[in-house]
Amino acid sequence: MSMPVPRRHFLQAAAAAVWVPGTARGYSASDLRPMTQDDVLQANVSKWELDTPALLVDLDAMEANLATMQSVLSRNGIASRPHAKTHKCPQIARLQIGSGSVGICTAKVSEAEVMLEHGIESVLMTTSNVTPFKIERAMRLRRWHPGFVQATDTPENARDLSEAAVAAGVTADVVVDVDPGGRRTGITPGRPALELAQLVDRLPGLRLAGMLCYDGGSQHVTGFRERRAQTRERLAPAVATFESMRGAGLNTEIFSGGGTGTYNIDHENAGLTDVQVGSYIFMDAQYLAIGGVSDAAVYSDFQPSLTILTTVLNSQYEGRATTDAGAKACTINRPWPIVKGETGMSYTASSDEFGSLVYDDPSRVYRTGDKLELIVSHCDPVVNLYDVMYAVRGDRVEAIWRIAARGMSA
Amino acid sequence: MSMPVPRRHFLQAAAAAVWVPGTARGYSASDLRPMTQDDVLQANVSKWELDTPALLVDLDAMEANLATMQSVLSRNGIASRPHAKTHKCPQIARLQIGSGSVGICTAKVSEAEVMLEHGIESVLMTTSNVTPFKIERAMRLRRWHPGFVQATDTPENARDLSEAAVAAGVTADVVVDVDPGGRRTGITPGRPALELAQLVDRLPGLRLAGMLCYDGGSQHVTGFRERRAQTRERLAPAVATFESMRGAGLNTEIFSGGGTGTYNIDHENAGLTDVQVGSYIFMDAQYLAIGGVSDAAVYSDFQPSLTILTTVLNSQYEGRATTDAGAKACTINRPWPIVKGETGMSYTASSDEFGSLVYDDPSRVYRTGDKLELIVSHCDPVVNLYDVMYAVRGDRVEAIWRIAARGMSA
Repeated sequence: MSMPVPRRHFLQAAAAAVWVPGTARGYSASDLRPMTQDDVLQANVSKWELDTPALLVDLDAMEANLATMQSVLSRNGIASRPHAKTHKCPQIARLQIGSGSVGICTAKVSEAEVMLEHGIESVLMTTSNVTPFKIERAMRLRRWHPGFVQATDTPENARDLSEAAVAAGVTADVVVDVDPGGRRTGITPGRPALELAQLVDRLPGLRLAGMLCYDGGSQHVTGFRERRAQTRERLAPAVATFESMRGAGLNTEIFSGGGTGTYNIDHENAGLTDVQVGSYIFMDAQYLAIGGVSDAAVYSDFQPSLTILTTVLNSQYEGRATTDAGAKACTINRPWPIVKGETGMSYTASSDEFGSLVYDDPSRVYRTGDKLELIVSHCDPVVNLYDVMYAVRGDRVEAIWRIAARGMSA
Repeated sequence: MSMPVPRRHFLQAAAAAVWVPGTARGYSASDLRPMTQDDVLQANVSKWELDTPALLVDLDAMEANLATMQSVLSRNGIASRPHAKTHKCPQIARLQIGSGSVGICTAKVSEAEVMLEHGIESVLMTTSNVTPFKIERAMRLRRWHPGFVQATDTPENARDLSEAAVAAGVTADVVVDVDPGGRRTGITPGRPALELAQLVDRLPGLRLAGMLCYDGGSQHVTGFRERRAQTRERLAPAVATFESMRGAGLNTEIFSGGGTGTYNIDHENAGLTDVQVGSYIFMDAQYLAIGGVSDAAVYSDFQPSLTILTTVLNSQYEGRATTDAGAKACTINRPWPIVKGETGMSYTASSDEFGSLVYDDPSRVYRTGDKLELIVSHCDPVVNLYDVMYAVRGDRVEAIWRIAARGMSA
């Protein structure tokens, strides 16, 4: 899988090359909708002609992932509320909503702003806003977007939200964020969480919408049985809390949690309304390694759809090659990216600017100028490095999607 | 060092807060020159009022680093050609040129485009361009910018450059990239490098400008003596090659190499004209750990000027706190970021969205809403995550600089 360029065709190739923007700058100021899609389709450009490093999403694989998720969740009687922190791309959020998701999640208020601005109307922000500036932004969002739901995890914060909502003249929907045991975010389940829910229910300017408990610590547990045992145990206190909220007559329309690693387990938690799956849309080397129900070695429920296209820059040294996709194009997450369709070679991206391909018993040897595709190590932070992703079907570029919430860490 | 917000001042603070953009979008479309600097100055905004995560550069520290570098290099009779892959910011490149640097380096053609477009006229691109598309871009740049110099590391590539230069009607300045032993990029020193230099010298459309040998593998060797011994040994073949180029009557105006870890060693390599220092401008936890001449434990030649401002999101669990700066704001490079001005606590950013502060024997305990500053782990990839950096003097924001080459990995 490469595009070798024989020297004699070199200048011809340069001359004939369809102009595809080498940097994303030409697109970053444009509208989300792929305005240049028609041009691209007319040009019938092959992904192998793209300048590199480039981020690609395989549409057949991604659509299969959407369908698999929807089918399994429907069977299990639970909804999806995919986490947009993974793709940061309104176009993909739209596809998720279109395939049946009840809404999306965002980690940051800046991500929520991008998604709401782009017509995604149901957004649950899973992180609490704790500064006056961010709370004000959230309330401003809520004024224009009735589908925006916020999280809170302390009584102090709930009071701050209430004051800000009243000042902004809005009624803000709020879910209580409950800690599954990681002591990272969320309030302790049981009485503290119940009392916080009751406080939210009472405070002016707020409307209690339910609960949230994201068990991030269980998503990458290796082995389906081990993963299931851990997440069931960790969710149990939240499940009991949710039951007590229901018993206390509080609004329990949302009980959101779970993720790609536990999507086929989460429905066993009584009351859980939806799963915050993120990585299923792309998959990555980290998730492939956790193992699934049918295959203990490889988590094959979803197909790897997200790849980095890279070019070999140097092949003059025996047993190895250097590419143009280093840490700034791949991150340094482990396991390292996987060279798609090849065996007997390993890829590392520990250098900022360069990737290293080392041959063991290689299925092929790459020459300078050849291109190869890498299955990403960990999709979320990789997506956050790029301004656009190229949506490809087979070898053809079908659309160019702006990663409109790229860099939105605030 | 924080800005606690007493509850009773909460809404007042929100109301009085000077509007500072929470995301960089408001600035990314604007010109590089800090158009809003006057507004910021008038507002007299404190860095503690900035929305987070935010990237800050301390101007006093950065200016001291510029002065130290220039003073040591002048004494040693060698020039600097700072690597812009570190800061990706034309404004800083301008300061470097202003302080005496002979030009800048870039790793990618897209970075070179940004720097040249922003008025930085002397740019040495240290990576070879190997695809027709990138070579055409480089030749187009050369047509308009006589100060643009390219690298090559194979005879085949030199011929490609020659054909493209002739086709574009330009004479391209080219340096031969020589491998210091990493077998990553560059041609083998000695006869292969000399013959390549002679080929470049002969080929139509090209002008040999000299040589390049970047010893990246020695920059982070711990201990000054060990670092010196290693880099002297690794550079020796390149030094001999450069001497033979001179002996063969070739143009030897450029012999570029070295970096922040070896800046006070590089002049010992006969013929080296300039050092490609990058990180000295910011410093980071990785460089602090390598040790220097005067202090074996800490590399104190330069001051850490680059920090990430982050807000505590959750402080309700004993012995720890959660912040809003995780892997997407800090990268996962090691050593982990250092909490500026504090002792007895450690910071990790292994979660994509959240940072974790763990207390051992803490100099203070942070509450929800407090802000803290982190000395970055590894400056280059951290800068690549942000659209702007806030240039601060003391606690005051003096300018907002666009990181115009952010994301330019192609």
